Amino acid sequence: MKIGKQDAPFQSICTSNPETIVVRGHDLVGELMGGVSFTDHIWLLVAGTMPTDAQRAMLDATLVAISEHGLVPSVQAARMTLAAAPEALQGAVAAGLLGCGSVILGAAEAAGLLLQAVVEENDTAEAGFEAAASSVVARYREQGRAIPGFGHPLHKGHDPRAEKLISVAGRLGFSGDYTKAAQAVERCLPGIVGKPLVMNVSGAIPCTLLDAGFPLKALKGVPLIARTASLVAHLLEEQTRSIGFILSHGAAKAISYDGPAPAGFVANEN
Amino acid sequence: MKIGKQDAPFQSICTSNPETIVVRGHDLVGELMGGVSFTDHIWLLVAGTMPTDAQRAMLDATLVAISEHGLVPSVQAARMTLAAAPEALQGAVAAGLLGCGSVILGAAEAAGLLLQAVVEENDTAEAGFEAAASSVVARYREQGRAIPGFGHPLHKGHDPRAEKLISVAGRLGFSGDYTKAAQAVERCLPGIVGKPLVMNVSGAIPCTLLDAGFPLKALKGVPLIARTASLVAHLLEEQTRSIGFILSHGAAKAISYDGPAPAGFVANEN
Amino acid sequence: MKIGKQDAPFQSICTSNPETIVVRGHDLVGELMGGVSFTDHIWLLVAGTMPTDAQRAMLDATLVAISEHGLVPSVQAARMTLAAAPEALQGAVAAGLLGCGSVILGAAEAAGLLLQAVVEENDTAEAGFEAAASSVVARYREQGRAIPGFGHPLHKGHDPRAEKLISVAGRLGFSGDYTKAAQAVERCLPGIVGKPLVMNVSGAIPCTLLDAGFPLKALKGVPLIARTASLVAHLLEEQTRSIGFILSHGAAKAISYDGPAPAGFVANEN
Amino acid sequence: MKIGKQDAPFQSICTSNPETIVVRGHDLVGELMGGVSFTDHIWLLVAGTMPTDAQRAMLDATLVAISEHGLVPSVQAARMTLAAAPEALQGAVAAGLLGCGSVILGAAEAAGLLLQAVVEENDTAEAGFEAAASSVVARYREQGRAIPGFGHPLHKGHDPRAEKLISVAGRLGFSGDYTKAAQAVERCLPGIVGKPLVMNVSGAIPCTLLDAGFPLKALKGVPLIARTASLVAHLLEEQTRSIGFILSHGAAKAISYDGPAPAGFVANEN
Repeated sequence: MKIGKQDAPFQSICTSNPETIVVRGHDLVGELMGGVSFTDHIWLLVAGTMPTDAQRAMLDATLVAISEHGLVPSVQAARMTLAAAPEALQGAVAAGLLGCGSVILGAAEAAGLLLQAVVEENDTAEAGFEAAASSVVARYREQGRAIPGFGHPLHKGHDPRAEKLISVAGRLGFSGDYTKAAQAVERCLPGIVGKPLVMNVSGAIPCTLLDAGFPLKALKGVPLIARTASLVAHLLEEQTRSIGFILSHGAAKAISYDGPAPAGFVANEN
Repeated sequence: MKIGKQDAPFQSICTSNPETIVVRGHDLVGELMGGVSFTDHIWLLVAGTMPTDAQRAMLDATLVAISEHGLVPSVQAARMTLAAAPEALQGAVAAGLLGCGSVILGAAEAAGLLLQAVVEENDTAEAGFEAAASSVVARYREQGRAIPGFGHPLHKGHDPRAEKLISVAGRLGFSGDYTKAAQAVERCLPGIVGKPLVMNVSGAIPCTLLDAGFPLKALKGVPLIARTASLVAHLLEEQTRSIGFILSHGAAKAISYDGPAPAGFVANEN
Repeated sequence: MKIGKQDAPFQSICTSNPETIVVRGHDLVGELMGGVSFTDHIWLLVAGTMPTDAQRAMLDATLVAISEHGLVPSVQAARMTLAAAPEALQGAVAAGLLGCGSVILGAAEAAGLLLQAVVEENDTAEAGFEAAASSVVARYREQGRAIPGFGHPLHKGHDPRAEKLISVAGRLGFSGDYTKAAQAVERCLPGIVGKPLVMNVSGAIPCTLLDAGFPLKALKGVPLIARTASLVAHLLEEQTRSIGFILSHGAAKAISYDGPAPAGFVANEN
Repeated sequence: MKIGKQDAPFQSICTSNPETIVVRGHDLVGELMGGVSFTDHIWLLVAGTMPTDAQRAMLDATLVAISEHGLVPSVQAARMTLAAAPEALQGAVAAGLLGCGSVILGAAEAAGLLLQAVVEENDTAEAGFEAAASSVVARYREQGRAIPGFGHPLHKGHDPRAEKLISVAGRLGFSGDYTKAAQAVERCLPGIVGKPLVMNVSGAIPCTLLDAGFPLKALKGVPLIARTASLVAHLLEEQTRSIGFILSHGAAKAISYDGPAPAGFVANEN
């Protein structure tokens, strides 16, 4: 059956014949392979145009920043999955990516939307970034929403990755409105939230990439691409030094059963 | 409960404290971010050491080669999934990666194992690559196994991506035993299989990367990382120009029901 | 690192020792296995209590209703995935379930929330179900939201599965406020939307199950459990009569490339 | 492009028109909904025929047996995934199912193949089940393969679920060749392996279902269907009493970093 009202049967990413593969209008074999870096290719695929040297360098810095941070939940889920299903590396990678959601890693896109709201408020009201940031953050708080891109459970005083991305962007000439918006949000947060919440890596990725001209709607792809590299690395280690079931054992020990049980039953799951 | 016999509760990829994140022994913020490309970082993550310029260029070429080839099954599965579940980009990426298996894309690792067998046979028997390739291919055929990395449904006469990878490897100085093994396999196939089967991209990726010093067990990660970029690009297009249900309608029309039905029933699913 | 503010390290679903497994307070081996049906067990697992005979029969009817409807997108994604990755049946099932989202199949929960809003409006305003339904539907329309659980691309005049579920619920004594709310929504839709939109299976599942005492928050699990059975059936057929790549070929033919291409390039992907 | 040699564009599971949905030849609305249980429907979908009362009872017992066993790795992966990506229940279910692989839960199919080998050896050699079991187990050991369906990390002395399934099968009249084969394997294991390995639930499911006439190739679907119910129950609990990040914290504490680090670096990830 035909579902919905989709009426444009087109795609504009790739076409081919037996001799030639065309990606975003470029000849894959004759021009791209051996001619551009993978990061150039990522920008071309998702944004549709070839990046400048500075744009590529900015995307490189964000992909490197977000790839790896140790045994985070998505890595644990992936390693447990491979231990249980070693026949399917792709299944374990998929299990890890499924945990790149709105709470973890997906925050880059949500933070981009926040920063865009601040930039638009500033453009409209011309009251300056401080006023725009305060207004947008106050609105988020009224709606009971978290402020995405600020605060971190480990890097509480400052997130060194965020500072470095801002510094790299400055060197590359990408300190524009989105960075100003992010810094204004960081400054207004203590007064509104009652405690400092420093810009984290998921706040710095959108402000630097948006100032570099990367599409807002493509932000969510950045952590997904970066994390796949990390997941593959962890899963290769899992193939030779498996810790999936040690992780699972440690996790289970942290939780107790508090439901009903038959009289006299004594739990002993270890 | 504790499952299995895992007894080494260690990982060696990343550690951190609030000030410093260490990836494979390198300072992520102080050294890697802004200092290396994403492709350097991928090599570092999966192989554990920093690549040379030539190694990075070889990995770039393979990642670019394998990223994108139009509306292949994994892209279709991902786009259908996003159309049905637009709330979860990560779920659609995961659905696409689940189709990177032993038949499609996963062939890179299987081809690497084939080439390694040829290289080992050549080292042991010293009868030359031609004899080694013939011997290994004949063994695969006796066991009823496909010859991974050779033949392609569209690029029948030659796979231009494979030729280009061999050419890039030659320019970078990586034409070693694995490339010789792959070329010997290609030459012996017509005589054994009865028809020419040219080296495809999944045959050229392992031979060039193995000659460049990339770990054999990491080969399967290369298409997974590359394809994530392609899936993200297609899913961003799907968000603005959705074709998921058009794909599904086209697919359903290709199939008829041939099971039992009540008397008088006339199918009409369109 | 410790993420978030979770502070109750408990679960209440299952505990065990080497002799006894306790599920929701019941002895799995001594009482449940051989004593209850799988549908009883599903209700026990998700709702925490054992169902009555009528409750079990209502859940049976909804699970049977929603299991299978031919080559829908999630089934196609699953079959394509197995064709590409035959080593992992669980990966193909997962790919199929990832398409049970807010647009397809997930509508049962969204429809449940709609019906709850109507029931609450009726309880508060005491203006009758007609007025309550009109008020809630008008609010949805003002917010630009679809009306979940009504309308179907194939079953336009009426969805026979919805009618049957309402009939089964009546026979079992479950025609309560949620069914009244759903019927009131169906009656008010032509006047508000401008065309008839009949109750579909995703509207009938929540109204009948909620009237039967099933938890609202568990509604989204019903299609996921039911569809897993369908996906397994299709994937077993795929193992012996594979159509995954025929589906993919049919889908690709429905789409044209409309992006840029080098001068003289002629696409020929078939 | 057209991949592979698939040439039968048919499916035999479901067809429909606006009035009627046909599942395996049966009228879904007129006959199945309200007429059969979900377990009947599962058997019909995967095996193609309606089960007898005894067959349905046997399938019920195995589905109930394998649904739930507390915080096993797949449940942990699913709960961590939902904590990180609460917008997609289906993604968390998929992450959990991806861990139903060859090592955990998938053993039912592997055990079925083992038992079939014993039954065939017995049919051919007519030397009795003891000799057949010893011969097949010895062959597995020579090939370095595990003996699927025997041994359990918690239920070491005996797996009460396995014993109960054998008992239910006996009551239902399903103690045939596959059960004899499984019991013969259990008896011969101490002599060959050097320690007792009792039949576990993944050994008892195939022997009882195969004796009941369930298709061998459908065995792997049984734990997948059963586990989906368990995953949904755990994820509903996760929505109201989240433990995903507590699990993750407990897991991470069980593992130390043993890779290189800059001089003076002190890890402090907690």
